[in-house]
Amino acid sequence: MPSPARVAVAGVGNNVSALAQGIRYYADLGAQGVPEHAFPGVRRPRIGGLAVHDVDLVAAYDVQPEKVGRDLADAIFQAPNNYPRLDVEVPRGVVVEPGIATEEEAREGIGRITESLRASAAEVFLYSLPTGMQWAASAYAEAALAAGAAFVNCTPETVGRDQEMLGRYVSAGAPLLGDDLASHFGTSILHRAILALFAERGITLESSYQLNLGGNEDFRNLRERGSSKRESKLNALAQEGVPLDKVDVVPSAGYVPLLHDNKVAYVNVEGVGWAATPVSLDLKLRVQDSSNAAGVIIDLVRIAAAARRTGDKGFITAAAALLKSPPGGHSVYTGQEIFASFHALARTGTA
Amino acid sequence: MPSPARVAVAGVGNNVSALAQGIRYYADLGAQGVPEHAFPGVRRPRIGGLAVHDVDLVAAYDVQPEKVGRDLADAIFQAPNNYPRLDVEVPRGVVVEPGIATEEEAREGIGRITESLRASAAEVFLYSLPTGMQWAASAYAEAALAAGAAFVNCTPETVGRDQEMLGRYVSAGAPLLGDDLASHFGTSILHRAILALFAERGITLESSYQLNLGGNEDFRNLRERGSSKRESKLNALAQEGVPLDKVDVVPSAGYVPLLHDNKVAYVNVEGVGWAATPVSLDLKLRVQDSSNAAGVIIDLVRIAAAARRTGDKGFITAAAALLKSPPGGHSVYTGQEIFASFHALARTGTA
Amino acid sequence: MPSPARVAVAGVGNNVSALAQGIRYYADLGAQGVPEHAFPGVRRPRIGGLAVHDVDLVAAYDVQPEKVGRDLADAIFQAPNNYPRLDVEVPRGVVVEPGIATEEEAREGIGRITESLRASAAEVFLYSLPTGMQWAASAYAEAALAAGAAFVNCTPETVGRDQEMLGRYVSAGAPLLGDDLASHFGTSILHRAILALFAERGITLESSYQLNLGGNEDFRNLRERGSSKRESKLNALAQEGVPLDKVDVVPSAGYVPLLHDNKVAYVNVEGVGWAATPVSLDLKLRVQDSSNAAGVIIDLVRIAAAARRTGDKGFITAAAALLKSPPGGHSVYTGQEIFASFHALARTGTA
Amino acid sequence: MPSPARVAVAGVGNNVSALAQGIRYYADLGAQGVPEHAFPGVRRPRIGGLAVHDVDLVAAYDVQPEKVGRDLADAIFQAPNNYPRLDVEVPRGVVVEPGIATEEEAREGIGRITESLRASAAEVFLYSLPTGMQWAASAYAEAALAAGAAFVNCTPETVGRDQEMLGRYVSAGAPLLGDDLASHFGTSILHRAILALFAERGITLESSYQLNLGGNEDFRNLRERGSSKRESKLNALAQEGVPLDKVDVVPSAGYVPLLHDNKVAYVNVEGVGWAATPVSLDLKLRVQDSSNAAGVIIDLVRIAAAARRTGDKGFITAAAALLKSPPGGHSVYTGQEIFASFHALARTGTA
Repeated sequence: MPSPARVAVAGVGNNVSALAQGIRYYADLGAQGVPEHAFPGVRRPRIGGLAVHDVDLVAAYDVQPEKVGRDLADAIFQAPNNYPRLDVEVPRGVVVEPGIATEEEAREGIGRITESLRASAAEVFLYSLPTGMQWAASAYAEAALAAGAAFVNCTPETVGRDQEMLGRYVSAGAPLLGDDLASHFGTSILHRAILALFAERGITLESSYQLNLGGNEDFRNLRERGSSKRESKLNALAQEGVPLDKVDVVPSAGYVPLLHDNKVAYVNVEGVGWAATPVSLDLKLRVQDSSNAAGVIIDLVRIAAAARRTGDKGFITAAAALLKSPPGGHSVYTGQEIFASFHALARTGTA
Repeated sequence: MPSPARVAVAGVGNNVSALAQGIRYYADLGAQGVPEHAFPGVRRPRIGGLAVHDVDLVAAYDVQPEKVGRDLADAIFQAPNNYPRLDVEVPRGVVVEPGIATEEEAREGIGRITESLRASAAEVFLYSLPTGMQWAASAYAEAALAAGAAFVNCTPETVGRDQEMLGRYVSAGAPLLGDDLASHFGTSILHRAILALFAERGITLESSYQLNLGGNEDFRNLRERGSSKRESKLNALAQEGVPLDKVDVVPSAGYVPLLHDNKVAYVNVEGVGWAATPVSLDLKLRVQDSSNAAGVIIDLVRIAAAARRTGDKGFITAAAALLKSPPGGHSVYTGQEIFASFHALARTGTA
Repeated sequence: MPSPARVAVAGVGNNVSALAQGIRYYADLGAQGVPEHAFPGVRRPRIGGLAVHDVDLVAAYDVQPEKVGRDLADAIFQAPNNYPRLDVEVPRGVVVEPGIATEEEAREGIGRITESLRASAAEVFLYSLPTGMQWAASAYAEAALAAGAAFVNCTPETVGRDQEMLGRYVSAGAPLLGDDLASHFGTSILHRAILALFAERGITLESSYQLNLGGNEDFRNLRERGSSKRESKLNALAQEGVPLDKVDVVPSAGYVPLLHDNKVAYVNVEGVGWAATPVSLDLKLRVQDSSNAAGVIIDLVRIAAAARRTGDKGFITAAAALLKSPPGGHSVYTGQEIFASFHALARTGTA
Repeated sequence: MPSPARVAVAGVGNNVSALAQGIRYYADLGAQGVPEHAFPGVRRPRIGGLAVHDVDLVAAYDVQPEKVGRDLADAIFQAPNNYPRLDVEVPRGVVVEPGIATEEEAREGIGRITESLRASAAEVFLYSLPTGMQWAASAYAEAALAAGAAFVNCTPETVGRDQEMLGRYVSAGAPLLGDDLASHFGTSILHRAILALFAERGITLESSYQLNLGGNEDFRNLRERGSSKRESKLNALAQEGVPLDKVDVVPSAGYVPLLHDNKVAYVNVEGVGWAATPVSLDLKLRVQDSSNAAGVIIDLVRIAAAARRTGDKGFITAAAALLKSPPGGHSVYTGQEIFASFHALARTGTA
């Protein structure tokens, strides 16, 4: 049995709340004798020998005054965090340390964070700050590199697909997984599956739209910078051969605080079948937004930890489908290679 | 360019209305210069060289007094038919002849229909009566056999999967395609795709249901004998590995005459993701029910005509995915074989 | 402060589970200092001085072997009951007694139940058996009459609108409230409100349907005898001036056990506005079915108890809007009279 | 029979397209012998004796180069207008004249428009420009005043509720109806009706949101200045006693050009009933957005014309419920006064 993965986190937001509570939730299930393959909502019971609850959070960094200095078990419930409080006990003992607050203090900050990572013996450093701070992503990646930890970048900032940075991680012998978390069960994947079904059956697409709304900080931010997100979502559909003149996407149709950390999506698809008679589909999807993230993070951190233990370095192919922008794009990784990569980690884990 | 397929129909219901009008609709599009690959709602522009409008209805049989003796172009609009009237001119000249009214008169009827099929030079005989009359399906299949026509069975009655009957068609050198029409874009295929996506992403299914309602005769009938239909729909889901204790299907939740020939389906899927937090999906699908049938019939009659012309006999593999119960079940036909079968027909058609 | 109403129940189904647990839920809220006007889901905090938790269940009758002989606090959770288990402690001490099992034993049963009602000092006898047993409703009403208790009939059986029975209750000086429970928040009231809005705004109704489905015994039964229920629901709409040729109702579109005690309704309304352009509305409503009943029962039993205490007898006008078939129909009771009736009870309660 | 109302329009957008085509649609129905009370989508067949098709558009002003100089019958179909083309013939003969293009040329423009209004003998001047140009609303109101025409302001700009302007119309003896068109069948009225039903039945509101999206210019504009619209929609709900901490409104959740002139709204309402068990409602409403405007404009222009003919001046009470901001707010007009005002116009019309 491998020892738990030691993970440090930059950014104590909803994703980390979902991660920390979820790990505990599954640990409790395991303690009650529920077999791992029956854990609800888990895609891969084991990666590199690590179960979903074989992850310890060993250090945490944030800049919000309400979070810094608090035990992580309390900090995850500080506003604006609004992931629900599950019926679990998150272990105490990790105090949130001050993160790097501004670009100006990045240089000095990198040193401080590197020390801390070493002191906590973190194997993996998870970067999960709000989107839009390239300097912060770069700075934390430097710290991980200096400390010899693997790095996982949940955001669209350029880290894992930066060839130079990737080269430095390879040289240092550490894994670097990025960029941009795919969703565990997102609107795009569902929208795409339905559009593919229309195409496959010969139903001609007339028009389609997708709306997303939610009540957490992501949606507050998105409302402002929705247009780049819209492009990226449309691009994802275009790769599947969807005619973009027939489809529209509204990444943040609304920041609705009453929804808390839930995400609601509405999708409409209008087409025509035989004799141009209509085929009309409307759906509503509701998910816990940060669970959607944590359900993928749990795979990335296990891949990162397992790879580091076996000496794999740079990008690990197993992570390709779990990220929106892996180095080189999705087309350079075949399903077979991804499968083989998971398999390689698995063999190691049980050794 | 091959000559149009000559098709006779048993049962002048909504499906034949959709078929007759749709053929005309596409013929008009073609005449306006719209290229076939741009025809809306068409899955396969050509089969065996035949376009969707390369089909002539040359004979028709029914037992309703309002339909018998009328020109097919009028009969398709007689109640209880309620497929919409499209803006097309269905060619006149085929008068609906009396079908076989009762099991008692089947023997005599077979002779009469055989004569008529020969007189009309029908290549394909399409059986599209209301579900539940095994004797009628068998009688019409006898007539087709005697007349040397291919037979297409749209209903769940046992014809194509009856080994003895199939053997007789093979001996006679005629194609026999059955049983039970698959839908062009049905609720089950959509439901299945979504459940598959849940499974593939590791979302644990908690419960799911599917309701179907409509206003045509099928739904009036289904309301009574819904339980066998429910079994068959659940079986279809079970084949995909869906846990049946988590899924329910109501084939006719309601016969709602106001819906006319539209079918409405409601699907709900509840699952849990990371940390057992909920994933909830609701959808409504609305389709023109008989277009859903005609969009598949058009492929079956072209397969049947093309196969008969090239001397192929018995079951034609190309039809396997277009039927709910092909001989031997779906598992005996691989995608590659189906593809090859279409390909063989195509080569012939353009010869 | 009046003493709690003493209520006996015939039938230990979901409604009684909802009632018993709900009373406890509100008692706990009150004990935590939540003011009564802030109790969630309560329409009238006090009736005749009685709060929603001023109701004691003092006797219970059923014929199911799994329920008879058990403490009511356990019996309410026996299958096929499937109302959820709330986080409350239902008080123990009332053992379910055998009810009247067949019409044959009604005479003898009435005597036995009368005794029991007297022994328990029940003020109100609540009749809440499955729909369709007129003989049982009549027998239990006889028992209540003999015991001098008020009677509340939740079912469509004819009791309260039977002039002779009503006269006997008047003679005996006891209240008789029936028949047929209205819903706390039902599909019909919502459907009606939307159709009224269409009419009021000059949107011409084209078509509309309403589907109801659920997973409790009511829906299992309804699926069979849905047509009479359909009539009664359509009649309710007709009274509001809705053109019935444009509306359809499916009372039990499906018995879906996975839904447990939840009821789901789908409503579609299609109309046209200016220049006959379309107005289209789709809605889904989901409620806890038996809470919908208990939320009205709690008012009826308080009305019955308060009226009995003040010597009011026969039908009590305050109950008119809480029943689908009050004596004489709804049109004989004005809003003002209903208001005055509540007011009269209220004055008494605080005396 | 009164002569048709003579109406000039400022702004040839979708609303005027809907108005012009709809008038023709109903004129055709009338010519086919359909009685006025059976006209679909019409709330008031006659106002002041005027039928919905007793309205002639006699002059039109716009600044878009594609519209100016064109016959109104063609100009209504110029982009960005995207109201559907109905199967009617809009009468030709009115050429769109240049409107007032900028605030600088307002003074000179007023004179020119006044002349034109007089020349066309317009009785009513309908102001229907995009929202946000106070100067234009004021300038056109000056022109109407100078020409002695009644003025109808469809926009939220301050005209009708400007006491000074209202006084000048009273002095001049002309009606002035404003400000801000209510919807024929809008999301707010529906949302409000459902929230009222929840409150009336004692269902405690937990949270609710309303999203609106569409594909016309209004939605393109709204996406930018949505926050003021949000305030006004929330205020409307607050007036009904809805607790605003439980409700959110997104006026333009998305500008989705594929929707053309259709508006789609999604409403979610979550509450709790008995024992705090959930009541959950989701709805989708789809309407032709500009029909929603034209269905109210048709009443306003008839009120304005009828009132002018009878010498009524200033604000006409009959219009109070058709506007979002009548002078003094809605609370100063009782239903009885509004009814009496319609009645007074009606008497006149038939004289």
